Amino acid sequence: MKRENSAPTMKDVAREAGVALGTVSKVVNGLPVGDSYKIRVEDAIRKLNYQVNSYAQGLKASKTYTIALLIPNTFDPFYASLTYHINIALMKRKYRMLLCTTDFDHQQEQEYVTMAQHNKVDGIIGLTYNPELIVEETTPFVAIDRSMGPKIPCVACDNFAGGQLAAEKLSDLGCKNVAFLRIGSSLVNEPNKRKAGFENGCLSRGLSYEMKILNDGDSYEEFEQFLSEHMSDGKLTFDGIFCVTDRLAYQISNTLRKLQLRVPEDVQLIGFDGIRYFGDMDYHCSTIVQPIPEMAEMCVDLLLRENTMMKPPLVCLPVAYAYGGTTLEG
Amino acid sequence: MKRENSAPTMKDVAREAGVALGTVSKVVNGLPVGDSYKIRVEDAIRKLNYQVNSYAQGLKASKTYTIALLIPNTFDPFYASLTYHINIALMKRKYRMLLCTTDFDHQQEQEYVTMAQHNKVDGIIGLTYNPELIVEETTPFVAIDRSMGPKIPCVACDNFAGGQLAAEKLSDLGCKNVAFLRIGSSLVNEPNKRKAGFENGCLSRGLSYEMKILNDGDSYEEFEQFLSEHMSDGKLTFDGIFCVTDRLAYQISNTLRKLQLRVPEDVQLIGFDGIRYFGDMDYHCSTIVQPIPEMAEMCVDLLLRENTMMKPPLVCLPVAYAYGGTTLEG
Repeated sequence: MKRENSAPTMKDVAREAGVALGTVSKVVNGLPVGDSYKIRVEDAIRKLNYQVNSYAQGLKASKTYTIALLIPNTFDPFYASLTYHINIALMKRKYRMLLCTTDFDHQQEQEYVTMAQHNKVDGIIGLTYNPELIVEETTPFVAIDRSMGPKIPCVACDNFAGGQLAAEKLSDLGCKNVAFLRIGSSLVNEPNKRKAGFENGCLSRGLSYEMKILNDGDSYEEFEQFLSEHMSDGKLTFDGIFCVTDRLAYQISNTLRKLQLRVPEDVQLIGFDGIRYFGDMDYHCSTIVQPIPEMAEMCVDLLLRENTMMKPPLVCLPVAYAYGGTTLEG
Repeated sequence: MKRENSAPTMKDVAREAGVALGTVSKVVNGLPVGDSYKIRVEDAIRKLNYQVNSYAQGLKASKTYTIALLIPNTFDPFYASLTYHINIALMKRKYRMLLCTTDFDHQQEQEYVTMAQHNKVDGIIGLTYNPELIVEETTPFVAIDRSMGPKIPCVACDNFAGGQLAAEKLSDLGCKNVAFLRIGSSLVNEPNKRKAGFENGCLSRGLSYEMKILNDGDSYEEFEQFLSEHMSDGKLTFDGIFCVTDRLAYQISNTLRKLQLRVPEDVQLIGFDGIRYFGDMDYHCSTIVQPIPEMAEMCVDLLLRENTMMKPPLVCLPVAYAYGGTTLEG
């Protein structure tokens, strides 16, 4: 059994600060002590480079200062960016993050939740499309993009407003006849509100519109067929298309090219998410940008709130339009 | 103070399996016991859904089954993919991952290493360009892309071979006069071997070549100037360019477009890394692909090896060329 004898202990801090051990413990655990004591303890902690032994602390106080993030993967740019910003938000609060990539596997997700609960992480932030996921009520949980019940706060961007904004933008840019293309989960979830928002925007602007709605697992070829069916004399009957994600907009722009159509001259294209080349360069397309840093902050803030009365079931954060080359002018 | 009384303990497992507590402990800690005992204990663990309390275990056995990953961020697609595959490789071995994004901040990196050591993670995998980073010899550490000393294994792709392959490919594709463009850290590191490999390939194929080498912080405009200086009568003197990363290849292709040059008809372009659109779609450009899943496996495998004699200082994994639209034919 190996021990690191070099690491200073709480006793060393108490001696250095000239205070009782209990005072150090209070400061370390965020309990109230007099300001002058607090300053002396914090100075001693800095001087000795004392690190809280979170494992011991985990046993004693049921607090580990560790949060688990359940996310399908980190190679998808939206998930990658969310992961990064949640990590930053936790770090600012001196919390650590266990990364749990799930690949949408329901069993894997449940195992992670159970593991997290038994190891007493302080909470879980999860983006999951698993309707059967069981989370104990005693485990603080914040969901992203899909409500998991009235007691679990859900953080999302304002997807409805984003859909509406896409319709309004296409209208502003001169479109008269538009389409909405969507592929995604058929479960009730926040991103599905993009459709209703878009319809609303079309109606209020008097835009004529059609929709093609696919579920995960459906073939992309159905979109190709849909677009082909709307060609006549080498022209597309739509002058604007709103795609449910930037990823889909990328695929659709490839299909339009094959149909000899020019973007944005023949048809304007708006995506959703706000994905940039290589994570931080140009936008892939004109897009409705999700406020990822703000969503990350909100997830962490809600998760760590002690007062459960202050945990609303749904928080929607504002989106914005960004020009990315697939619409006429910015 | 809250306890989860519902969680089964090691004692419950021993009772269920009808074996001594010490036998359960051995199985849980991977120590040798008779096969029949092992099966009984494992059955009992499954039946009771017993979860090892890693925090208690961390105190007792200095083993936490937790690894820290130090990585600049997860929004860069290369880092995002590495993070994902290291997570998968750890998960397969029932290890958990603390994600520590550093934004290349030296102080942040050192704090993470110190935190990881004091919290007794079982080891650290780190991608850092911090020459001052202090890692205690007792902490298992595997470095990515930059050697941190003879006792710390470094995992990278075969950058030299990748550079050479880029030159050979450009030669195979008919190029006669090529350029190498590089921006990156001036520290000794593995990716810098791309340059030497490329030179070697050019020399062996009789290709005439020029280089433009910038360091992090230098202005991108120097590349624009370099290319402009090599224009005459609207033509570029190079018919092939090797960029040190796909990210740079993206920037360079934008610059070439502004110079009214067509890729690949006027000038062929090869990048490095093998980054795909949206993480899993087409390649951004013709590229030398890093074997990220294999690098991730190797990092984890080396980190968890007990026998330090079997930890080589440098492991280079094979690269491959992939066509991505910026060269003539695949």
